[in-house]
Amino acid sequence: MQNFDYWTPTRLVFGRNAIEKLPEALAPYGRRVLLAYGGGSIRKIGLYDRVRELLAGCEVYELAGIAPNPKFAPSVLEGIRLCRAHAIDVILAVGGGSVLDCCKGIAGCARSEGDPWDIITGKQPTTGAVPIVDILTLAATGSEYDNAAVISRTETNDKVAYFSPLVFPAVSILDPTYTFSVSRRQTAAGTADAMNHVMEQYFVGDSTMLNDGFCEVALRSLMANCRKLLANPEDYTARAEMMLCCTYGCNGIYALGNAYGGWPCHGMEHALSAFYDITHGEGLAILTPRWMRHILSEATAPRLAQYGRHVFGVGEGLSDWEAAEKAIQATYDFFASIGIPMHLREVGIDESRIDEMAAHVVADWPDMQTAWVPLGERDIAEIFRASL
Amino acid sequence: MQNFDYWTPTRLVFGRNAIEKLPEALAPYGRRVLLAYGGGSIRKIGLYDRVRELLAGCEVYELAGIAPNPKFAPSVLEGIRLCRAHAIDVILAVGGGSVLDCCKGIAGCARSEGDPWDIITGKQPTTGAVPIVDILTLAATGSEYDNAAVISRTETNDKVAYFSPLVFPAVSILDPTYTFSVSRRQTAAGTADAMNHVMEQYFVGDSTMLNDGFCEVALRSLMANCRKLLANPEDYTARAEMMLCCTYGCNGIYALGNAYGGWPCHGMEHALSAFYDITHGEGLAILTPRWMRHILSEATAPRLAQYGRHVFGVGEGLSDWEAAEKAIQATYDFFASIGIPMHLREVGIDESRIDEMAAHVVADWPDMQTAWVPLGERDIAEIFRASL
Repeated sequence: MQNFDYWTPTRLVFGRNAIEKLPEALAPYGRRVLLAYGGGSIRKIGLYDRVRELLAGCEVYELAGIAPNPKFAPSVLEGIRLCRAHAIDVILAVGGGSVLDCCKGIAGCARSEGDPWDIITGKQPTTGAVPIVDILTLAATGSEYDNAAVISRTETNDKVAYFSPLVFPAVSILDPTYTFSVSRRQTAAGTADAMNHVMEQYFVGDSTMLNDGFCEVALRSLMANCRKLLANPEDYTARAEMMLCCTYGCNGIYALGNAYGGWPCHGMEHALSAFYDITHGEGLAILTPRWMRHILSEATAPRLAQYGRHVFGVGEGLSDWEAAEKAIQATYDFFASIGIPMHLREVGIDESRIDEMAAHVVADWPDMQTAWVPLGERDIAEIFRASL
Repeated sequence: MQNFDYWTPTRLVFGRNAIEKLPEALAPYGRRVLLAYGGGSIRKIGLYDRVRELLAGCEVYELAGIAPNPKFAPSVLEGIRLCRAHAIDVILAVGGGSVLDCCKGIAGCARSEGDPWDIITGKQPTTGAVPIVDILTLAATGSEYDNAAVISRTETNDKVAYFSPLVFPAVSILDPTYTFSVSRRQTAAGTADAMNHVMEQYFVGDSTMLNDGFCEVALRSLMANCRKLLANPEDYTARAEMMLCCTYGCNGIYALGNAYGGWPCHGMEHALSAFYDITHGEGLAILTPRWMRHILSEATAPRLAQYGRHVFGVGEGLSDWEAAEKAIQATYDFFASIGIPMHLREVGIDESRIDEMAAHVVADWPDMQTAWVPLGERDIAEIFRASL
C-alpha cells in the first residue's frame, strides 16, 4: 500500500430539490455572482429560471455558451475578464463537466498573477481562486468533486489538465432529476467516462482488497444503472446511483493507497478530442479495449482476469490469459451494447493524423512513460490504429 | 436512494513517516499547542519523543492520562481549562479514538459559551472550536475522519454522542507502523468496532448496489486483515488496509444515500460500557449476533442472507431464512475465532443491572425507536440477556 495525502473539502448536497440549499451555499461568499453555463439545455428543463429566482438578492453576471471540451479562448479568457471587471465573489457553474472545468480555469486565473495559459499549464502558480458553487446536470466527469480541469486550446490542438487545491468546488448541488433529460447517447458516453475513471485507478501495480472491491462494484453499478437508464431515462434511483458513482470518479477515493497507474487512456483520448473535438466518453470507450489488448502479457493477465471474473463474471475455471481475453471482449461488447460507436472512423477520425496525435500524447502526458504498462509513441500509434 | 448532505474537510496524511508533515500541518494554526494523549504507550513506541522534537518551535502544554471511554471529568474539563488558560491555538491529539473523542469535546467546549455538559449533550450550541490535528495509534473508531465524539459521565452512567461540524480534525496523520505494537486483544476489538460501523450502515431499509458492495468488501477486508495481523502484528500492508477501513467507518462514506438505520448496536453497547467500562469493540462483538438473531424475521431475512452470501460465502442455494441463520452463526464464529470473549459474563457483566441499562439505552439513544427494526426497552433487555 502506497502513502497518500488526501483532502476533498467539497460539500455534496445530493438529492431531489437539493437546489433549495443554493442561497445558503452562496451566502458565505458574497452577492456578486458569475453565473456560467453552456447551451440551452438548462433553460429547457426549467433550471435556468429556478436559478435566477433563487439568485434574487444577488448581482448576477452571465457567461453563457461554454462548449464541450471547454476552450481557453474565448470562454476561459472571457470569464477571467468578467470576474475582474465586476469583482465577482463566487462563480455559480450550472452544467456538466465542461462548464465546471471551464469555471475552474477561470477561478484560478482570475485571482492569480501571470499569463493565464501559463497558470493553466502549471508554469506559473495558482495563488488564489474565486470560490465555485456548482449545480450538476450531467453525471460523468466527477469534476464536481475534484480539483482538476481539462482545458483545450484549439489553435495548437492542446488539451491539458489543470490542477490546484484552490479550485475544489465549495459546494456541489447534485439533483439526479436534472439528468432525466440527458440523451441516450450522452448517458452512454458518461457511463463510459466514469467506468474509465475507475479502471485508470484499478489497473495499477499495487492495490488493496478494499479498493479492488470498491472499484469492481462501481463498474458493475455503472453498467447496471446505464442499462436501466437506456430503458427508462427517468428512473430516479438509477440516475442517483449513476451520479454518485460518477462523482467519486476522479478525486481519488476509489483507490486511496493504490499505486498511480498513469491514466493512459485519458492521455490518449485527450489527443483525439483535442484534434477532432469528439465526445470524451466515446473516445475512452473506443480506446479502452484496444489498450487492454495492447498491454496484455503474462504480467498483466492476472489483473485483467480478476477484472473479468469480478466485474463481468467471465473466466471462471479458465487460465488467466483466457479469462483476460474474455474480459477484454466483454468490455468491448458492453460499450457496443449501450450504443457507443466503437470505431474511430465512426466518430470522424481517420488514419491521417495518427502519428501527429501520438507525438502530442507523449508531449502533453508524460505519465505515459511511467504508467502501469509504460507506453511510447509507437505503442500509442498502434493503439490508435487498432481503434480505427 | 435518500437525499444527503455530506462534507468531510479533514486532510488524511497516510503512510510510513507521515509524521514528517506534522510541522506543516500545525503551522497554519499557531504556536500554542495542547498535546493530549492517554497512557504510556506513545512513549513505549518512541512516538512521544519524536512528537516533542517536531514541536521544537512551539509552546507546548500537556494533557496526559486520557482514559478509554473518555471521561467528562476530569479529562474534558481539564482540557477546557488548559485551552482557556493558555490561549491554545491547536490541539494535537496523539492516540486512539478515546484521545481523539476527548479532544473533540475539549475543542468545542473551550470556544463555546455555556455549561460544557450542555454543549456535549447538544442542549447548547457549539459556536466555535479549537482546531485539532491528530496522530493515530489505534485503528478502530474512525474518529480521525468524522465530527463525532463519545463522552462518558461516570457519576450518572451516561455515555453520549457529541456532534459538531466544527470538530472535524483538520489533519489526521495515519502511520500504520504506530499500530504494530497494538495487542492481539485490541486488534481484535478494533476490528469488531470497525465491522460494526459498517454493519450499522449496511443493515438499513434502503441501500444501493454501490454501497452494498463497498460495505461488503470492507467487512471481508477487515476480517482478512485481522487474521493476518493475529498471525503477524507487523504486517505493514495488513495494518495499513485495516487502518483505512477503520478511518472510513463513521463519516458516512460507506453509505452515502443509504437510509439511516439507527445504529442500534452502538446504542446498546454504550450502556454496557457506561455501566461497566468494558472495551467498546468487545461489547459490540458480543451484541451483534444476538441483535441479528433478535431481529430475524421474514422481512429482514433477505438482507441478512445477502450479507451471509457476499461477506462469508455461506448460504448459496439455501432459502433466505436458512442463509440468514448461517450468516448469524458465521458472525459469531468469526468474532470467537479472533479471541473475543463472546459472553457478557466473561467481561464482568451479570444480570443484575440489565433492566436499568435497557432503560438507559431508551433514554440516551432515541434512534432505537426509528431503527431499521425498532427496538423497545423489552427488546433491548432480551438482547442483553441473550448475550449473557
